[in-house]
Amino acid sequence: MLRPKTAHTAIAGLLTLGLAAPAFAGSFPAKLSKKSKECIDCHKEKSPSIVEHWGSSKHYRANVACYECHSASPRDVDAFTHFGETIAVIVSPKDCGRCHEHEVEEFTNSHHAKAGRIMGSLDNVLAEVVEGNRNFKTPGFPMGNSAAAVNGCWQCHGSQVKVLKEGKLDPATWPNTGVGRINPDGSEGSCSACHTRHAFSAAQARNPENCGRCHMGPDHPQIEIYNESKHGIAFRAHKDKMNLDSPKWVVGEDYNAAPTCATCHMSATPNQPVTHDVGLRISWNNRPPVSVRPEVSDAKLGLPGANIKWNVRRDKMKDVCSNCHNTNFIDNWYTQYDGLLDLYHEKFAKPGLALMALAKPLKRRPSFSEKIDFTWFELWHHEGRRARHGASMMGPDITHWHGTYEVARNFYSEFVPEIEELIHRGEKSGDATKVEAAKRLKAKLDEILNSPNHRWFLNKMDPNEEKFRKARQKEFKGRYK
Amino acid sequence: MLRPKTAHTAIAGLLTLGLAAPAFAGSFPAKLSKKSKECIDCHKEKSPSIVEHWGSSKHYRANVACYECHSASPRDVDAFTHFGETIAVIVSPKDCGRCHEHEVEEFTNSHHAKAGRIMGSLDNVLAEVVEGNRNFKTPGFPMGNSAAAVNGCWQCHGSQVKVLKEGKLDPATWPNTGVGRINPDGSEGSCSACHTRHAFSAAQARNPENCGRCHMGPDHPQIEIYNESKHGIAFRAHKDKMNLDSPKWVVGEDYNAAPTCATCHMSATPNQPVTHDVGLRISWNNRPPVSVRPEVSDAKLGLPGANIKWNVRRDKMKDVCSNCHNTNFIDNWYTQYDGLLDLYHEKFAKPGLALMALAKPLKRRPSFSEKIDFTWFELWHHEGRRARHGASMMGPDITHWHGTYEVARNFYSEFVPEIEELIHRGEKSGDATKVEAAKRLKAKLDEILNSPNHRWFLNKMDPNEEKFRKARQKEFKGRYK
Amino acid sequence: MLRPKTAHTAIAGLLTLGLAAPAFAGSFPAKLSKKSKECIDCHKEKSPSIVEHWGSSKHYRANVACYECHSASPRDVDAFTHFGETIAVIVSPKDCGRCHEHEVEEFTNSHHAKAGRIMGSLDNVLAEVVEGNRNFKTPGFPMGNSAAAVNGCWQCHGSQVKVLKEGKLDPATWPNTGVGRINPDGSEGSCSACHTRHAFSAAQARNPENCGRCHMGPDHPQIEIYNESKHGIAFRAHKDKMNLDSPKWVVGEDYNAAPTCATCHMSATPNQPVTHDVGLRISWNNRPPVSVRPEVSDAKLGLPGANIKWNVRRDKMKDVCSNCHNTNFIDNWYTQYDGLLDLYHEKFAKPGLALMALAKPLKRRPSFSEKIDFTWFELWHHEGRRARHGASMMGPDITHWHGTYEVARNFYSEFVPEIEELIHRGEKSGDATKVEAAKRLKAKLDEILNSPNHRWFLNKMDPNEEKFRKARQKEFKGRYK
Repeated sequence: MLRPKTAHTAIAGLLTLGLAAPAFAGSFPAKLSKKSKECIDCHKEKSPSIVEHWGSSKHYRANVACYECHSASPRDVDAFTHFGETIAVIVSPKDCGRCHEHEVEEFTNSHHAKAGRIMGSLDNVLAEVVEGNRNFKTPGFPMGNSAAAVNGCWQCHGSQVKVLKEGKLDPATWPNTGVGRINPDGSEGSCSACHTRHAFSAAQARNPENCGRCHMGPDHPQIEIYNESKHGIAFRAHKDKMNLDSPKWVVGEDYNAAPTCATCHMSATPNQPVTHDVGLRISWNNRPPVSVRPEVSDAKLGLPGANIKWNVRRDKMKDVCSNCHNTNFIDNWYTQYDGLLDLYHEKFAKPGLALMALAKPLKRRPSFSEKIDFTWFELWHHEGRRARHGASMMGPDITHWHGTYEVARNFYSEFVPEIEELIHRGEKSGDATKVEAAKRLKAKLDEILNSPNHRWFLNKMDPNEEKFRKARQKEFKGRYK
Repeated sequence: MLRPKTAHTAIAGLLTLGLAAPAFAGSFPAKLSKKSKECIDCHKEKSPSIVEHWGSSKHYRANVACYECHSASPRDVDAFTHFGETIAVIVSPKDCGRCHEHEVEEFTNSHHAKAGRIMGSLDNVLAEVVEGNRNFKTPGFPMGNSAAAVNGCWQCHGSQVKVLKEGKLDPATWPNTGVGRINPDGSEGSCSACHTRHAFSAAQARNPENCGRCHMGPDHPQIEIYNESKHGIAFRAHKDKMNLDSPKWVVGEDYNAAPTCATCHMSATPNQPVTHDVGLRISWNNRPPVSVRPEVSDAKLGLPGANIKWNVRRDKMKDVCSNCHNTNFIDNWYTQYDGLLDLYHEKFAKPGLALMALAKPLKRRPSFSEKIDFTWFELWHHEGRRARHGASMMGPDITHWHGTYEVARNFYSEFVPEIEELIHRGEKSGDATKVEAAKRLKAKLDEILNSPNHRWFLNKMDPNEEKFRKARQKEFKGRYK
Repeated sequence: MLRPKTAHTAIAGLLTLGLAAPAFAGSFPAKLSKKSKECIDCHKEKSPSIVEHWGSSKHYRANVACYECHSASPRDVDAFTHFGETIAVIVSPKDCGRCHEHEVEEFTNSHHAKAGRIMGSLDNVLAEVVEGNRNFKTPGFPMGNSAAAVNGCWQCHGSQVKVLKEGKLDPATWPNTGVGRINPDGSEGSCSACHTRHAFSAAQARNPENCGRCHMGPDHPQIEIYNESKHGIAFRAHKDKMNLDSPKWVVGEDYNAAPTCATCHMSATPNQPVTHDVGLRISWNNRPPVSVRPEVSDAKLGLPGANIKWNVRRDKMKDVCSNCHNTNFIDNWYTQYDGLLDLYHEKFAKPGLALMALAKPLKRRPSFSEKIDFTWFELWHHEGRRARHGASMMGPDITHWHGTYEVARNFYSEFVPEIEELIHRGEKSGDATKVEAAKRLKAKLDEILNSPNHRWFLNKMDPNEEKFRKARQKEFKGRYK
């Protein structure tokens, strides 16, 4: 798409599009461009609803229409001629940034914009090898892609868009509105991941479902947690009081009935502006097996957030909370959340990681050719995240029944027996290296199971602990005549 | 219920009901019939809300009331006398068809209307034998039914309604609004499955939840997929702009904010009318282990759809899509969808079917007395459908994490080991037939695992493939400074 | 909080708060108290949204504001001085009961109010020992709590609130709005579990999501069942006609479009008043492995409901049903529901309990150190409840695919093989007691598997039964030309 090299502001950006100089009196075109009118004349017949969507958008009122966004320079790799005009299908963040410069900059510095980077990574081996094959052959990929990646991973993470002849886009990579899409112009991300074309409704982006497109399911059920939480309950009951269509949308000023995902993670409060970097208010990154501080993962991706410590981010979130909650409530709540992470880390995640490291020489190659790989993967990637995310957003049922309960059940009734089986196999292998590896793995397992966190499992609960538990049981029972 | 033999139109149908000749001036009664007034007088006390539901319906305005629908002929098997009038409880499609002839005809030719036919089939063995017993004994079924079928299967698929004395309906078969209910008059289906009595609200039928009553859950989570999709997100955000109450409801004319289930599968577009045969726009039937074209399954049921090829149906769907999407987008999307099906079929479904066929002599009898029967059943019936349905409606998380990921995990970590166990058992059986069967099963398993789709599992990835993968990994990583 | 000893009515209660005697002319303060005004002056800056929530509440119009609810007596254990005033954070049911005496009394007699009593019980061993540890150390609990209980169980069931110095509340126990919270004043329960502060919106409490905060998930998916049911479908389609904001909310009078959780379990009908004891209309308590009548579980908790038989309660529910359904429909439906319970009880729950009792000497100690404990626990606590709850609220897919199907699958393919493994282990143990126990367990398993409910599993279906099944299959197939 057309990207003027010298223009940085909306005015300049639009001017370089050559929009009707005489009629152009300010930041926006004074009237619909002739070229856009031509687009509309045909498309209101061919695809009426997108014209109507655009008609309900703010873009309509600003005279920003088809041609203003879709026009391209002949040098653009995805440009093609359409009824005499040079246009492109994809409007990339670079394109949007001609007017929405600040928003695109924030977004570009966020994890969202980098979501496409996992493609081709080791993480991606599941979809490409285990689940997939390379039989999805398209003009741009004669060696094929995995249809599981195309229809699965890429739709949320983003594809690397491949341009064919005459601006046609390869079907393996388009349609695609993954939030970290790698665009033909090299830019990362897709504004339409959240701002669905062609209405670009802010109200829609503020709705929790919008985030739920990707933040759902067994490995990060944020929408399910939100729906279960007091926050989600209040939203469902009072959606009509949420003022979701208001351009200015400051919690405590323009609405107060409930917070949505946007409220807490992005939108303005009386004390801070809206941000399009969704990581700026979170104090834990719960993605890896053991949660890390967000500045750590920002550093890994080379993002400027590397310089913003977790406690600064937490203060930003606390500012949001304080619209409805007092300081003690908020501080106590963070104590609870941190406590849950500590439990998961110390009792399950770190011992699990240690065991998996020692188990490596005893496992079948490659990864995922043996059940224990799935067991461990789901322990941290599915159940362990559910516990952590559940606690982070106050969904007690998901925290417990879909979280810590399943973590513990699978740790003790699947993972430990599978580790024991590897030990057994190693011991019987007759291979000195494996016998040695089995010995080390057994020693670690014994150490873990005999630690205070796990010795109950061996029926070796500390006598003091047992006494204490009985006392508390009595104490509690005493209250229930 | 009363079904006039000679009447085919609404006018004639109502005339034969003997409705107030003098006051009757057109297609509909000019005023409420005296008999219906009598019904209402009592029922507005006994069951006020159904009278109110009816009062909010189009039927009210058309003077079509209680007696007009519930009156019966004494010859009807379910007729009974109620305060001097001959009526019946069930208003069957035949009854509705006196006025809604066209809709009933379309519906009657659809898979929906035939959903009751699975009852008593082999498919039904789960609910009746494995889960159930025959201890649910009712007056009409002294030999009993399975309560699991009554409360489960039959509620969506439909019961075969059994009439007791004096029009009473057997509690095993009523209440029931299964879409394929077999009615006392022999007609198949239940209009109230979707058009809930007594408001018969079109708006409700256009809501996605309406379809979600049955199209949900582990084996066909359409409502969950819709909710995750861009389509569902737009619907939730803009439901108030959907014009759901409008009699005429043509996408692109009367609404454009989002499509619901009805929009794509049933409702009118500028180019095609509404249809009550939900299969007319789908190009795959994803029900069986290996998906088939809809004309194939229509032929099996003896339906006229046998003559309507999948590509004709796909064109109808593309016409719906084109309201919001351009041709390239639509064609590319179908390429993605077909690709996912191909992956599932070739890598998992066909090999799985082949293995299960060869495993038959080695498995315990009867079906489902051994774990592998459940493993395989869920592979295609649950996880395999989730992958296919997820891709068909653009729900990437369900396609992947609830779909292809679980298909692959269970194929490699449950199904293959269970097949290996059967081979082992057969080999050790000392029974020549079984030894032979085990040999054949082993040969097939070896063939499958050594094929390009699966040899990664044996750590035998093709060197070229390995090189290719490493190159692509590098290529991708290169982009992420 | 301040609890006047002699006052029982709202007027007296408010008078003893010393509210502006001259201006006080009736049951409620004639104007906002000076003290509340002071609270508001500051809090509308510090936490604007809670002031706004209160401003949208009925409390606002009644001049019941911050001080009226949060003022405390210096003798209250949780009282503290805040800008010169003695106040407390928690407004307990005792406090609410100063005005809402009747509602609090009903609630206090309900299971809801007693939900905190499970804490410290044996049931609680999962969260405290298996999933947890005592590493969540807070000022009030130097010996620690389990973060899994704090973030999980306690958030729905309620914490036992611990008061620290100067009215501060221990972070292990606050924030907490569990419905059975044990308050500093000894009262049980939390009105804000359902009546979210500070709007206390009745409309919100009438929304199904409100109940879904706790009634969701693998072990009691009531909200999921509701959403799938005709009732939930009608609610979603016609929410705007539900009149949810109306003070008087009598089904059939003030609304009729759909029932919510509140409609059936709590709210008024033309014939019965609203109740805050949610157990008064249910005829089964589906919590335990084998369902019991509600009067039995009420007796166990020492509740007055011990004197209210299940059939009396069922009649109350039938009165609700009768707003939309006739007597035959309702009676037949209850026959279906009871039938499902009977199937689950006789085929799975009772045999399972018997086997687990005999398996005890053969299992590893302690509980949950062996997989069978999880298998059996989930059979009744998760899947068995889903079947029962699904049937109780007409969610056929959950009844079957998440219910009876999974009960049967896990009974036959997990539980029975695990019992067989225990038998095998016992027989080989060389320990006479265990050999004997194994013999008894084997005898019971044989008895169960050879019973009419299970002999299909041994391929020993009764010949008559087999004939009957074939005949029915033919009969059914005959109908499908």
